[in-house]
Amino acid sequence: MRITLIAALVLSSGFAYADEGQWQPYQMPSIADKLTERGIEIPAKQLADLGQYPMNAVVSLGYCTASFVSPQGLVVTNHHCAYRGIQYNSKKEHNYLADGFLAKKMADEPSAGPNERLYITENVKNVTEQVTANLSDEPLTRYEQIQTNSKALIKECEADDNYRCSVNSYHNGLEYYLIKQLIIRDVRLVYAPPESVGGYGGDIDNYEYPRHSGDFTFLRAYVGKDGKPAVYSEDNVPFTPKSYLKINADGVKAGDGVFAAGYPGSTSRYNLTSELKFASEWLYPTYAARYQLQIDTITQMGETDRDIAIKYAGTIASMSNRMKKLNGLLDGFKATDIVGIKQSREDDFLAWLKQDKAANPKLIAELETLLAEQQKQTQTNYYFENAQSSTLLSTAKKLYRLAQEKQKPDAERESGYQERDMKMFRAELERIDSSFAVEVDKTLWLQDLNAYIGQPLKVKVFDNALEHANNHKEFIAKVDGMYALTELTDQATRLAWMDKSVEAFETSSDPFIRLAVDVHATNMDLEKASKLLDGKLSKARPKYMEAVIAYYKANNWPVYPDANRTLRITYGMVDGYQSKDALYKQPFTRLEGIAAKHTGEEPYNAPAKLLAAIATNDYGKHTIQSVYNDPRSWMCKLVSCVETKNDFNSVPVNFLSSVDTTGGNSGSPVFNGRGELVGLNFDSTYEAITKDWFFNPIITRAVHVDIRYILWMMDQVDHADNLIKELDLVRNP
Amino acid sequence: MRITLIAALVLSSGFAYADEGQWQPYQMPSIADKLTERGIEIPAKQLADLGQYPMNAVVSLGYCTASFVSPQGLVVTNHHCAYRGIQYNSKKEHNYLADGFLAKKMADEPSAGPNERLYITENVKNVTEQVTANLSDEPLTRYEQIQTNSKALIKECEADDNYRCSVNSYHNGLEYYLIKQLIIRDVRLVYAPPESVGGYGGDIDNYEYPRHSGDFTFLRAYVGKDGKPAVYSEDNVPFTPKSYLKINADGVKAGDGVFAAGYPGSTSRYNLTSELKFASEWLYPTYAARYQLQIDTITQMGETDRDIAIKYAGTIASMSNRMKKLNGLLDGFKATDIVGIKQSREDDFLAWLKQDKAANPKLIAELETLLAEQQKQTQTNYYFENAQSSTLLSTAKKLYRLAQEKQKPDAERESGYQERDMKMFRAELERIDSSFAVEVDKTLWLQDLNAYIGQPLKVKVFDNALEHANNHKEFIAKVDGMYALTELTDQATRLAWMDKSVEAFETSSDPFIRLAVDVHATNMDLEKASKLLDGKLSKARPKYMEAVIAYYKANNWPVYPDANRTLRITYGMVDGYQSKDALYKQPFTRLEGIAAKHTGEEPYNAPAKLLAAIATNDYGKHTIQSVYNDPRSWMCKLVSCVETKNDFNSVPVNFLSSVDTTGGNSGSPVFNGRGELVGLNFDSTYEAITKDWFFNPIITRAVHVDIRYILWMMDQVDHADNLIKELDLVRNP
Repeated sequence: MRITLIAALVLSSGFAYADEGQWQPYQMPSIADKLTERGIEIPAKQLADLGQYPMNAVVSLGYCTASFVSPQGLVVTNHHCAYRGIQYNSKKEHNYLADGFLAKKMADEPSAGPNERLYITENVKNVTEQVTANLSDEPLTRYEQIQTNSKALIKECEADDNYRCSVNSYHNGLEYYLIKQLIIRDVRLVYAPPESVGGYGGDIDNYEYPRHSGDFTFLRAYVGKDGKPAVYSEDNVPFTPKSYLKINADGVKAGDGVFAAGYPGSTSRYNLTSELKFASEWLYPTYAARYQLQIDTITQMGETDRDIAIKYAGTIASMSNRMKKLNGLLDGFKATDIVGIKQSREDDFLAWLKQDKAANPKLIAELETLLAEQQKQTQTNYYFENAQSSTLLSTAKKLYRLAQEKQKPDAERESGYQERDMKMFRAELERIDSSFAVEVDKTLWLQDLNAYIGQPLKVKVFDNALEHANNHKEFIAKVDGMYALTELTDQATRLAWMDKSVEAFETSSDPFIRLAVDVHATNMDLEKASKLLDGKLSKARPKYMEAVIAYYKANNWPVYPDANRTLRITYGMVDGYQSKDALYKQPFTRLEGIAAKHTGEEPYNAPAKLLAAIATNDYGKHTIQSVYNDPRSWMCKLVSCVETKNDFNSVPVNFLSSVDTTGGNSGSPVFNGRGELVGLNFDSTYEAITKDWFFNPIITRAVHVDIRYILWMMDQVDHADNLIKELDLVRNP
Repeated sequence: MRITLIAALVLSSGFAYADEGQWQPYQMPSIADKLTERGIEIPAKQLADLGQYPMNAVVSLGYCTASFVSPQGLVVTNHHCAYRGIQYNSKKEHNYLADGFLAKKMADEPSAGPNERLYITENVKNVTEQVTANLSDEPLTRYEQIQTNSKALIKECEADDNYRCSVNSYHNGLEYYLIKQLIIRDVRLVYAPPESVGGYGGDIDNYEYPRHSGDFTFLRAYVGKDGKPAVYSEDNVPFTPKSYLKINADGVKAGDGVFAAGYPGSTSRYNLTSELKFASEWLYPTYAARYQLQIDTITQMGETDRDIAIKYAGTIASMSNRMKKLNGLLDGFKATDIVGIKQSREDDFLAWLKQDKAANPKLIAELETLLAEQQKQTQTNYYFENAQSSTLLSTAKKLYRLAQEKQKPDAERESGYQERDMKMFRAELERIDSSFAVEVDKTLWLQDLNAYIGQPLKVKVFDNALEHANNHKEFIAKVDGMYALTELTDQATRLAWMDKSVEAFETSSDPFIRLAVDVHATNMDLEKASKLLDGKLSKARPKYMEAVIAYYKANNWPVYPDANRTLRITYGMVDGYQSKDALYKQPFTRLEGIAAKHTGEEPYNAPAKLLAAIATNDYGKHTIQSVYNDPRSWMCKLVSCVETKNDFNSVPVNFLSSVDTTGGNSGSPVFNGRGELVGLNFDSTYEAITKDWFFNPIITRAVHVDIRYILWMMDQVDHADNLIKELDLVRNP
């Protein structure tokens, strides 16, 4: 069935039906018809303007998306996006993670932490010319030129240190854009539900649906009295955003058009089939096997050592998340023959390309050769890179690299080693202690070392330094000795190395510093080889993309660039999906589903006050009264909604839509057709994980927190009247 | 939510909406309105007549239901109902279980085994008067009178030995019916799909949905040349049934009214809330714990001993099935507060009863006292009965009992020990070898013995015989010695004991015979106590039922008796259901779902020929072309069936309806409104398992094999043209 049905239909129907696309805002007018067709009334031209409502209310947290919802800088995002700030404020005497937090007045809003930032994208400028003018044909020079040109643009843009700038590649280097973001440096915690609400269902429900997460938190942006960004100070005042989102308390219903704005991380939609094959057949299975071993190892060690369990809780959580994503990818490739679908599309493209006399006939062959080389490089480096996975070794390597880079002028240094990066560099060195235990680090490193030793691709200088050729017992003793002798486990020592000279490293007796010095030249060679290949690809890939785009345009298919952590807009409709034969997942979950899932044990341990509020069947007095009248609902089965008009009310908790999202879209505002806030994006469904490679409109759904649940929580459970007053609540006309 | 929503609605809506009821055929005219409302056109009066179509084509296999589908005695039932007959014919050289079987001509149809029978219910007669006239008030006498009266009626009815008769209690003894069934003694195997089709999904899918089982098999009834029932002989000829079912090749669609006829085993719908509480709080959890221990023990022993694994495969399968049912009951009671719902209904009834001046005010209190006594008896006997669980001990007990009973005239003997039972008695003694291993029997018995020893309710004579008061090592040695010394493991020895005298037992040195003799008097005392209680209940329960029925009639609610293995009719509609919040299970599964579930490993190992036939997308040339156009289907999501009229065809595999079934309804014919066969009932959904206590119309669905899948298998996969020709295929008008 895999090819015959799904593939055939997807292929034959082309793109016409799909709500696919993570669009650059400036592109919106080019898809105005599709937006209108979906019932999105707000003019495409308005959406394209970052200075206008609603896009000027959308902000980045660096790794998540958020949005302004009041004239006093109130911001809403996901609970899991604000997690660090809640954790930062949680103490033994008031555990906000466990119990939630609500500031009843502004004076009670604590800092979310010194490193929390909000970034407001104010300007996006096409700088393709500046970045790619007069590039050399010599690959390594070409690579360096692109870096240098980009750095120069960034430096100029960051002249006002209230801004953070970046140059981003689109369409694999076909275009470059300079992005200028205002930095808010004082972010405070305003209102967060307990983790048992925000992360209801935990790891089990992660990537799953039906879902019942109250994954929202309110923050507030503060600035200096002069209205300019400033670090935390008691004297700071709430920031006045250019605009803030209207909130529609009526929400949406099945079939409504919606759109979302945010900062999706990375997709590979235009990559070649050979790349997908490599990823699905080698990369993901190989990663998955190593992750699973590490998860099992750490879990087992944590069972007998509570300190380890606590320190690695975060590591395990993020590894489990990645593991579930990997499994989702592998299961998805099994369920649908995505390689076959992509190959078929690529064949059509190649046939089209052949007819174009002007096209370089060797274009594809040349790119495929480079990709094959890249895959070989990945495989070759894989075991050696893992063999350096010890946290202490990678720390030593970074410190030695810093000493090396410091010998250059700041502008010429490698990205990550410039002065602008030092604050983050130091913070990372400090953070190690909170998630590190010698026994775990050593055990995981030995696993990686054994895997390296067991395969044929060896690096002599590393082998000599490690002396692993001797018997296994001696080798273990050697590794034990390294951990016993090193002083890098001490934070002060680590930080002190930030200021030491290359010579100090080269004469150090710290075993991890010594090993870092020993393998430095080899690692630099590998980095150079990688840059050389990147230089070659920086020529071949844009040409390929140029041809692909021409092909799409010839077919009248719209084109959007792969995700790259920059601001995008995606549209779709509120919709359920066919999960399996005879199994239909409906677009809305409801309050009663929370109570039904409640077991009293994590991750289904809903707070008593929430359960009590659900039990009252009071769905809201003034702000919300949501009619939930799906003729397929089980209540309607019983008393036939259609015939009896016996509507069944409840508060929707989460809902599905066909908007096109990926990691980074967490916290993205979800809008109704008039650009009013109706939900927050926070996840996508398990069947949809392969969408990073192929957007399958049949099964691709994003999961959102319904604004009506957020308002109901504020109104009926937490009585956040002070915040409700701040919001601009609107109703359907 | 449990009480507030489901319960409240179920309670407030009364019974008006429910397709509840396992109706006696004679009752059909009383619910003619409801049948008409559901679109069932066949006259209720016709359904009530066992001599007319279609009820005269419905037959019993003793433990399952089946139906005639050709003038030459062709019968269709479930694969799992015909399992014994397929297994009986499976040899090393032709494994019909694994590969399936099709006789291309009648001469190739083998006997399904000497013990297979078909029972055709020809007459059902109310004999309440004869059974209950002039009963004594002394409970034990009363009990014996009911037995004696029943036996007399049976004896008279069985004068023609082509008939099997039984007297069955309805409404807990309020009514008695004498049922007369023609016995077909020569049953042959005609056509069975492989087990990988008939039981696709195995234990994992058992009680689950979406389901994709081809759970059907064709048998044929043979009789002597004179047309009268006869044991297997080559000279026998196909039986000519009074009628045979029309088969509608168009099947049904969602919303269609359907009905099913069959032999449901047992329900407890009218039992008191106190009985449900006892079952849900003590009985089921206690049973479940013991079953799980036994399943784990046997599985573990089977892992190291292949002989054990083979011998206990059937035991494990049926224990797993019962375990899943127990878990379903326990989960169901957790999910919905059925005790609360029943209590609320009972309260209403009691309030109503209070207003009835004529009613015995002590009626309920007296019954509750007896029920409390019964529950206490159950708990008291539980450990002692389990302590006698050794197969060898229970065999010895039955043999000794037989010797005792044989001292009485045949008519006075306990049921099961009369001459008419001896064939089955002998067969059971023979069958032991195929599913018995000393090590397993001993281990399980020791577990039960330890449980008995560990609780306070002791039976002295048993304790003395077992000498378990001594130290544990000696006790184990004693049990070991019993298994070492006994000769009951030998089949011939067992059979020989059938003819021995009471004296022979009492002087035997076989340790299990000795133990059986030692505990006989105690067991007889317990049986007498149980009969005494039954005698008391045989007076109290009918009175309670009389009041309940009066209450129902006062409310204009229809009344049907609890299931008791007798012929019933149930009606409903083809319908999906809301399985969980936001999770809707659609009423039809389809061919493509088989391929999607296929992993190549049991229980999802579909035969290559089936997968190949699915891959052709050929849904049938002449016999079937089923339009499957559900606007919720995933194909329709993609290309919008409604808008484009782009219907998506497939062959439905299984479907759901709201008919009211339970164990024993396996193989039941499912009819459309005109009484044409459209499917075979074979299971119900996990959420519906509690329906034996409470029919919850929201979630109660039965699972059927769609007739279109059966026809497609016959037509496209197995080319059973010879059988298709025999069938009376009709289409929708």
